Amino acid sequence: MTGAAGPVLALSGGVGGAKLALGLYRVLPPEALSVVANTGDDFVHLGLHVSPDLDTLLYTLSGLDNPETGWGRRGETWTFMQALASLGGETWFKLGDGDLATHVERTRRLAAGESLSEITDDFRRRLGIRARLLPMSDDPVRTWLLTDEGRLDFQDYFVRRQARPAVREILYDGAAAARPQPQIMAALADPALRLVVLCPSNPFLSIDPILALPDLRAALAACSAPVVAVSPIIGGRAVKGPTAKIMGELGLPIAAAAVARHYRDILDLYIADAADADRLGDLDLPVRFVPTLMATLADREALARAVLLAAAGL
Amino acid sequence: MTGAAGPVLALSGGVGGAKLALGLYRVLPPEALSVVANTGDDFVHLGLHVSPDLDTLLYTLSGLDNPETGWGRRGETWTFMQALASLGGETWFKLGDGDLATHVERTRRLAAGESLSEITDDFRRRLGIRARLLPMSDDPVRTWLLTDEGRLDFQDYFVRRQARPAVREILYDGAAAARPQPQIMAALADPALRLVVLCPSNPFLSIDPILALPDLRAALAACSAPVVAVSPIIGGRAVKGPTAKIMGELGLPIAAAAVARHYRDILDLYIADAADADRLGDLDLPVRFVPTLMATLADREALARAVLLAAAGL
Repeated sequence: MTGAAGPVLALSGGVGGAKLALGLYRVLPPEALSVVANTGDDFVHLGLHVSPDLDTLLYTLSGLDNPETGWGRRGETWTFMQALASLGGETWFKLGDGDLATHVERTRRLAAGESLSEITDDFRRRLGIRARLLPMSDDPVRTWLLTDEGRLDFQDYFVRRQARPAVREILYDGAAAARPQPQIMAALADPALRLVVLCPSNPFLSIDPILALPDLRAALAACSAPVVAVSPIIGGRAVKGPTAKIMGELGLPIAAAAVARHYRDILDLYIADAADADRLGDLDLPVRFVPTLMATLADREALARAVLLAAAGL
Repeated sequence: MTGAAGPVLALSGGVGGAKLALGLYRVLPPEALSVVANTGDDFVHLGLHVSPDLDTLLYTLSGLDNPETGWGRRGETWTFMQALASLGGETWFKLGDGDLATHVERTRRLAAGESLSEITDDFRRRLGIRARLLPMSDDPVRTWLLTDEGRLDFQDYFVRRQARPAVREILYDGAAAARPQPQIMAALADPALRLVVLCPSNPFLSIDPILALPDLRAALAACSAPVVAVSPIIGGRAVKGPTAKIMGELGLPIAAAAVARHYRDILDLYIADAADADRLGDLDLPVRFVPTLMATLADREALARAVLLAAAGL
């Protein structure tokens, strides 16, 4: 039996996952939470190391996120992009002026020999975040998509082509040789660990890159704490982004049940939306139905509480 | 005899020199002017290649310069610097959000193998500048100052320490091995060359790094066109910056005459301010006295016309 005050590990991608991460951060003792971020979307753009999911988590957990766009920073200005356009620079990936500071400073510190973990930990402290924020690895892992338009890197697919190409296969280049961030493995081996949460991020683009790291999936399957996933599918549809489209292209039913089966070997509990209660079928796994749409901050806290409560009942 | 429609070459540092360069650009056929920029102040800051004098010239000649500050871009925003400060980044060198685009895009293109000349030529065309803008060299030259606080690189001396340390000696590291930008040497060898102007920039920090390049001083001495310098000293004082302070520290009289003597071996004509007419002494060189303070755009054009007129009378 794990303690109610024990540490909680959340695995997250960007926007959707960060909402639940924020909910957990607000309802748990803040130091109890460690959030593992997907870095498969990281890329070098304009010579700068951009870590989209880490940054969304940094901004969301520190309250710097932009509630209107759902990405980037609040109070952002766009003078850089305008000036870059006038010099003929690439403008398909939007970098706000304040956001740029994160990329420039991270790139400078990486070049100076610091690890992504060290830099991220310093950034989150400076931004007042008391939870730990862990890149999934300090080694490079890059998500590639085999599509009907050829092999595309993640941002080329996701931003430049707006997820329009049909996905045939997804590769996590470098994952087999990458070492999971050591604090993740230590947390999973900690007998005091209370809970692992797979946030409602895209299973294929945001969570699978983390699970593709050596020993990580086995450590999740073996860990003493319950592993709980929250469905990113509500009422047979994805809340946002290309999750549903990709599931169809990969030959999966667009259903909350398909996500649960995808994580089957590591899950102890599945949290799905009440809207999917009638069609979930037999998952051979404990399931709780709660409202999972997180439109407001109160929704995020409520879902976090529901996850904690459901896991405590196992 | 060189033609009145022939090309004009101007050697310039930042703010003061750029004012006369703009005057020349406005009174000459725009394609007739080539401006050679000091790159001894260039440095890598936050991982970005910053070329302060090239950028001042780019912004001044394109009308993007900030008339209030005298440096940087008009309509600038500062979101990047604020965000950088919150992440613990270095903030002693102010990089505006729009200005940053120049540094990021230049750094990216340098890393991709383009030369500083190629990048500068593309930038000036995109910003609508019809004059040529030439970095003095595509090879690195770095101005160092031996001071009473030790050996300092240029920006450390000039920006971080606000030119406070006493200068003992100035070094142009790399100059002996640097190749002058080929178009400069071609322009000096061109029989149609109308005029060479040493703009009223700091002789030691802005013009001497250019003159320190191999063969450049000899090519200036040998070229068929008149070489004219405009005094940066008015009434025994520098208009701006540390010129007068450095002259004193180097044991030179703070006088327009001392600048003329500094350039003696290459000069055909010296343009000084009427305020220095009584104290210039015998320079063994033609001298013209005209108002050299450039407070307004009209002043810049008037000084440019006066320089062209005086040179034509040789």
